[in-house]
Amino acid sequence: MYKEKITRGSRPLILVTNDDGINARGIKTLAEFLMPLGDVVVVAPDGARSGQSAAITVKEPLRMAMVENREGYKALKTTGTPVDCVKLALNVLFADRPDLVVSGINHGSNSGVSVMYSGTMGAVFEGVVNGIPSIGFSLCSFDADADFSICSEVVETLCSRALKNGMPEGMGLNVNIPSTKHLAGMKVCRAARGRWTAEYDSRIDPMGRPYYWLTGYFDNAEPDAPDTDEYVMAHNYASVVPVTPDRSLSEIDPRVVEWMAL
Amino acid sequence: MYKEKITRGSRPLILVTNDDGINARGIKTLAEFLMPLGDVVVVAPDGARSGQSAAITVKEPLRMAMVENREGYKALKTTGTPVDCVKLALNVLFADRPDLVVSGINHGSNSGVSVMYSGTMGAVFEGVVNGIPSIGFSLCSFDADADFSICSEVVETLCSRALKNGMPEGMGLNVNIPSTKHLAGMKVCRAARGRWTAEYDSRIDPMGRPYYWLTGYFDNAEPDAPDTDEYVMAHNYASVVPVTPDRSLSEIDPRVVEWMAL
Repeated sequence: MYKEKITRGSRPLILVTNDDGINARGIKTLAEFLMPLGDVVVVAPDGARSGQSAAITVKEPLRMAMVENREGYKALKTTGTPVDCVKLALNVLFADRPDLVVSGINHGSNSGVSVMYSGTMGAVFEGVVNGIPSIGFSLCSFDADADFSICSEVVETLCSRALKNGMPEGMGLNVNIPSTKHLAGMKVCRAARGRWTAEYDSRIDPMGRPYYWLTGYFDNAEPDAPDTDEYVMAHNYASVVPVTPDRSLSEIDPRVVEWMAL
Repeated sequence: MYKEKITRGSRPLILVTNDDGINARGIKTLAEFLMPLGDVVVVAPDGARSGQSAAITVKEPLRMAMVENREGYKALKTTGTPVDCVKLALNVLFADRPDLVVSGINHGSNSGVSVMYSGTMGAVFEGVVNGIPSIGFSLCSFDADADFSICSEVVETLCSRALKNGMPEGMGLNVNIPSTKHLAGMKVCRAARGRWTAEYDSRIDPMGRPYYWLTGYFDNAEPDAPDTDEYVMAHNYASVVPVTPDRSLSEIDPRVVEWMAL
């Protein structure tokens, strides 16, 4: 459909997306950080798609339109989810496979169990399923004037490494960066276990009918575990959690065999 | 908000949801299969939410309304996603925790990598995160007159077992049932690796602008592996894949340590 499909030039080809939409500060900052590393193509939703997980658009057709096109940098908006953006880029837009998929920088944390609901990370899983090194970045701040500059070193270090060395098959990275003046570094860790709780604010509308706003807080089941993302972030480190799209329990977990035999 | 919250009676309390919507044949059949096992409460989307993965509704309030209420059976529709339905049930509707979350019966397969995009399975992961035994069922047919009766024995066997024995922590089940006249039984297995490919049908609208329909097919990377869901289904067995909401790679995969040291 795109008569002139995007091909890889002499530099690496980097696909950038997010779930906050193409006009978010986080994705603009991310693209700037990445431009020294390769040719950047942003394919992102035309508006906010927070909490979209790995949702795909199945019942409506999608649109995609170029909004910026200059040397080493292209930006396209779509009517879809973050996963739709990656799929459109790989299937419709690109003649060559990108060398790296980068998602974010998300406005707000995707640590702990939040990785499950995150549209930012949905895009990362889609990249991994397609065999492409993929990294999601989140800054743990919802402030309109959050300081994304503190993310630059982490983004450049991990993305350079992925471009240079590739990444183990089936693995992506979920990187969360605490909103702090003095980032101590980064640590590889795992997602803290826990769950969201007290999740709705129940209200009554002027017609007397109930409605429910999603709210609540993350109840960390292991606040003292030093190898978790929540813990390292509380100590001013960026958390680097290796993640996989594969949902199968390791094959086959003895607990399962036991359970099936009950 | 619900003045009379739902409590557990003398029988087990079973929460039922899906992603095809409250009026789908699959969820009505599933509720019928489950009524001999306990009190059934259906909390399901008011219309189709296919491909919604674990998406949550963050920017709009949700509505929930009772549509049926008789002895041992209640049904409520919501304006949300499958995960929203589980969250509303647990946070707003139920005074007691349900003993089991069952999702489906989905119209169409959720085998292989499709578990990632499935709203049916999104609801299952939400149940597991909340520590409740949770099972998703899918019938591998999109026919309007598909025969759901072939699912009855598998549904009853697995749900009875889960009610009797609980389930290992952090584990749910993704059950896919082939559309066949003679189901040979069920087998515990893992998701076949692979990816969807050739994913868009590109068209031009009457105004000359392009649009894209999601389509394509699952490219099974290991069609001959006898321990995969695709394989066992091709041999007329229902596939039972133990799944986990946890996306962290096993802690910490040596490949990751190696990669970080590069």
